Amino acid sequence: MYSYKQLFDFTEQVFLSMGCPAKDAKLASEVLLEADLRGVDSHGVARLSGYVRLWEAGRINVKPKVRVVHETPSTATVDGDGGLGLVVAPQAMLIAIEKATKVGTGWVSVKNSNHFGIAGIHAMEALNHDMIGMAMTNASPLVAPTFSTDRMLGTNPIAVAVPTKNQPAFVADFATASAANGKLEILQRKEKKAPAGWIQTKEGQRSTNANELKDGGALLPLGSDKTHGSHKGYALASIVDIFSAVLSGANYGPWVPPFVSFLSPPENPVGEGIGHFLGAMRIDAFRPADDFKEHMDNWIETFRKANVVKGQKNVVIPGDPEREMTEKRLKKGIPLLSPVERDLKSLAKKFKLKFN
Amino acid sequence: MYSYKQLFDFTEQVFLSMGCPAKDAKLASEVLLEADLRGVDSHGVARLSGYVRLWEAGRINVKPKVRVVHETPSTATVDGDGGLGLVVAPQAMLIAIEKATKVGTGWVSVKNSNHFGIAGIHAMEALNHDMIGMAMTNASPLVAPTFSTDRMLGTNPIAVAVPTKNQPAFVADFATASAANGKLEILQRKEKKAPAGWIQTKEGQRSTNANELKDGGALLPLGSDKTHGSHKGYALASIVDIFSAVLSGANYGPWVPPFVSFLSPPENPVGEGIGHFLGAMRIDAFRPADDFKEHMDNWIETFRKANVVKGQKNVVIPGDPEREMTEKRLKKGIPLLSPVERDLKSLAKKFKLKFN
Repeated sequence: MYSYKQLFDFTEQVFLSMGCPAKDAKLASEVLLEADLRGVDSHGVARLSGYVRLWEAGRINVKPKVRVVHETPSTATVDGDGGLGLVVAPQAMLIAIEKATKVGTGWVSVKNSNHFGIAGIHAMEALNHDMIGMAMTNASPLVAPTFSTDRMLGTNPIAVAVPTKNQPAFVADFATASAANGKLEILQRKEKKAPAGWIQTKEGQRSTNANELKDGGALLPLGSDKTHGSHKGYALASIVDIFSAVLSGANYGPWVPPFVSFLSPPENPVGEGIGHFLGAMRIDAFRPADDFKEHMDNWIETFRKANVVKGQKNVVIPGDPEREMTEKRLKKGIPLLSPVERDLKSLAKKFKLKFN
Repeated sequence: MYSYKQLFDFTEQVFLSMGCPAKDAKLASEVLLEADLRGVDSHGVARLSGYVRLWEAGRINVKPKVRVVHETPSTATVDGDGGLGLVVAPQAMLIAIEKATKVGTGWVSVKNSNHFGIAGIHAMEALNHDMIGMAMTNASPLVAPTFSTDRMLGTNPIAVAVPTKNQPAFVADFATASAANGKLEILQRKEKKAPAGWIQTKEGQRSTNANELKDGGALLPLGSDKTHGSHKGYALASIVDIFSAVLSGANYGPWVPPFVSFLSPPENPVGEGIGHFLGAMRIDAFRPADDFKEHMDNWIETFRKANVVKGQKNVVIPGDPEREMTEKRLKKGIPLLSPVERDLKSLAKKFKLKFN
């Protein structure tokens, strides 16, 4: 078990060692560690060495000049200057919030960025301003559209955070694939089979082999197959791709550069880096904030106390499991798998840092 | 087979007979008939008698004064005054487009409305203005959240329309349930079983009985079960509900009034009527419109020519099947099932109209 502070301090030191300015190193560490707190272990410190390798490959600019390249009162297009998405996305979100403060809503499409951690944390920033927050990002292609054998889309997540009064905030944050890649990675480590409906072989046949992606297979869109609505998951992932990258001028579809440094970005890119889309809507741009929040509390209470299938405790409100996990891990610490521990130890050695 | 003009003229006469002003009768007919053209037969003239029955029950105001009750430069909340959603939603969409023209984007939440036909047609209005259009609506509760036995959410559709240059527009329009109720109705008529993963019994067990809803069962969210991501479909339907109704002050969750006149609206409503959410984003609020459209063409061409699973023709671009159906039905006519024909004939009798 590691304390939040312990992992935070180490992560900050790593980003500082890469040459990030102090403010950026702190921000990037805060964003990254939220994944570990919220229980999305695949997106937290487990990825730290990945960011370092991308930086070593010259694919991350540690001193980006993030700037607005196009704007209207309610929109902006942001050039992330090749920076860490962990740093670029929060700045873009603040621009969205600033615009929403002035004209009711703010919408920012970002190009030339990198992986931004978990989508939820960016959407949640809006909660501090009595706003609904939205965050989405495209990602390197792992998902095959309905009927296709090609990996054309990332697991392209969508997050929406909604303010409340006395209830905890509603925070939805989900990949538009039937299962995120992180879940497959867990099965791979445990040498277990995957449920049918998550992946297909390179010929497009159903597979339960958790390692199928290494043999040219693909993840399936939310819905799994046409009969169960995979064309809807494919449409959702496409919308995320278009808003994040076609609007901003980032790479889209099969051109999105891979997160892993051992794979080169595709030749003849159609844009710059990866893309995000961030939005903020002021609650009181629609109705008095207090009215809205009271009804949101009622919404949440009503759903939470709905009748459940035998054996289940209650209907889960989006954001509940992650909030409970955060409380637990702040108190009891964050567990790391041994490969992650090894990774962090080798980073410590590389940068001459301490990691216990 | 019926010609578009034949069905349009009849529908317009019915709305006029109900007392709709000429302009509204025309608009409502245009919107309703789009469903028949696009092949969404459950949402077109098949519903005409349903609207009439709601009007007879005093639940539709045929002369609504649609008005903005709250606004900022990029947002508005619209009171539909109990009007037909077919008339209220297009007016709300025009407000969104007007705001987008001025400040880049426009977002309108609507309360006190009724069923608005297919979501896609409202989103598509934005295409005429070089804008991305979005439309969603809540609907009477038929879907159980993950783990629940209660119907808490409608099939709450989401539509997104994206402009292009030479390619046909990208138009996604889908229910956030694993299958829309219209598909079940078709199986009921044919006395066929439903695929596993669409519905559950009133105890929350999987069912293939297409009539299960009559026995207290429920539709399942997109994803079908927790393993395949039904919590994502439940989150999506919730987001639609919150944007459409908690933002506007309409009824949400289990309080959404039923479309069928033989079921009374729930007692102690939490808002007014049903709710919609409409949005428009000017393409050139993010980048020059021509740049965007060229890349959208490239996006579509790339996806359409992706490799396919053996036996499939090509990857389907959202909107393709509906556009092809529209071309076909404008040329060859619109087929109606005999119960729908009977329905229209009885409407003709009721209003002393001709229907051949």
